[in-house]
Amino acid sequence: MEDLDIATLQKRLVDFAAARDWERFHTPKNLAMALMVEASELAEIFQWLTPEQSADVMSDPEKAFRVRDEVADVLAYLLQLASACEVDVLAALADKIERNELRFPMGREERKARG
Amino acid sequence: MEDLDIATLQKRLVDFAAARDWERFHTPKNLAMALMVEASELAEIFQWLTPEQSADVMSDPEKAFRVRDEVADVLAYLLQLASACEVDVLAALADKIERNELRFPMGREERKARG
Amino acid sequence: MEDLDIATLQKRLVDFAAARDWERFHTPKNLAMALMVEASELAEIFQWLTPEQSADVMSDPEKAFRVRDEVADVLAYLLQLASACEVDVLAALADKIERNELRFPMGREERKARG
Amino acid sequence: MEDLDIATLQKRLVDFAAARDWERFHTPKNLAMALMVEASELAEIFQWLTPEQSADVMSDPEKAFRVRDEVADVLAYLLQLASACEVDVLAALADKIERNELRFPMGREERKARG
Repeated sequence: MEDLDIATLQKRLVDFAAARDWERFHTPKNLAMALMVEASELAEIFQWLTPEQSADVMSDPEKAFRVRDEVADVLAYLLQLASACEVDVLAALADKIERNELRFPMGREERKARG
Repeated sequence: MEDLDIATLQKRLVDFAAARDWERFHTPKNLAMALMVEASELAEIFQWLTPEQSADVMSDPEKAFRVRDEVADVLAYLLQLASACEVDVLAALADKIERNELRFPMGREERKARG
Repeated sequence: MEDLDIATLQKRLVDFAAARDWERFHTPKNLAMALMVEASELAEIFQWLTPEQSADVMSDPEKAFRVRDEVADVLAYLLQLASACEVDVLAALADKIERNELRFPMGREERKARG
Repeated sequence: MEDLDIATLQKRLVDFAAARDWERFHTPKNLAMALMVEASELAEIFQWLTPEQSADVMSDPEKAFRVRDEVADVLAYLLQLASACEVDVLAALADKIERNELRFPMGREERKARG
């Protein structure tokens, strides 16, 4: 399905907002704020759960729907913010993973254990 | 560059955590909390800026680096949470866009204006 | 009205939770998470507003009710977290103000301008 | 100590910002955003802790300092936002507790158990 490509979805989100004349609301500041609010709605699902209940969250269909829905909302605002700031999200993430590999090198024993 | 595919990056993140024995920390609850903390660090960059300054944030190299870095951190925790909950982020987003298109239909005049 | 004392309100909140057997949910971690979620619901009221609209938020009765309600929720979780961690919120704030006065001293001209 | 009164501390915070000419930054929107960022810094202390470790957080002097410091920051922004919106925080909280007592009444058995 050709839609399931991140660049295509990102373009659909930007076009969707433009078609509704929402661009004037979509400053980087407002999008960052909306992203934080959505991340918080995702966290709310988990706030009173034990670690064990949280690991099992997707076995409850209503909670599973909410998790999936809020994950989509977070990604939607992240991609809109990235468009507004002209950040390539996949390149930014690849760079970050490389920085983290230097920052948290695996110990010798861990490497040995993994061959 | 073969790394710049979302599924490949998601797998690298999961392997990175597993190699460091961080899986026991990575319950969905903790990952949702970490995601919210990172979204908040991204918002912090913008908190005292005017709308105009926020639109121009990427012209400051130090702020531009931070935006890119925090966007990567948000995406990293979102993908790790999605892995832990077995959510396909791109399918979830495509579904959400479709629900939003039904929820916020374009008015007749907007359609006309856009041909 | 004797209720309008912070220590009395804090005790009422703790008793309220204990009476409903909610203490097992009220770990410092969960209360910190709930506090963040409530702070986010407060921020949500402002997310698409211009600075000018935000300054005028209380002139809209429905928004004014929400602001007041979410301010109360944030304070409620903050006081419950403080009880769980045995933090005296007013002493902590007084100490912080003193540290900030050392960290951000007023310039000579500002002092002069203010006599 | 006369400083340890919420109204006095609130006035000191407002005067502190005014003396530094920070009022132009302190729109309700920006203060709500800063409040959320501080709530998130408080939550960050707990993000990888187990429920048991979180209950014991104050036994670690460095973490105890951070908890106390971030609790103060959250309260500081909450009081500044309340000043900007002319919300009486203690009255708002008392009202909310009353609404919650109607919304979550104690069951007959709970009342009996408590005499």
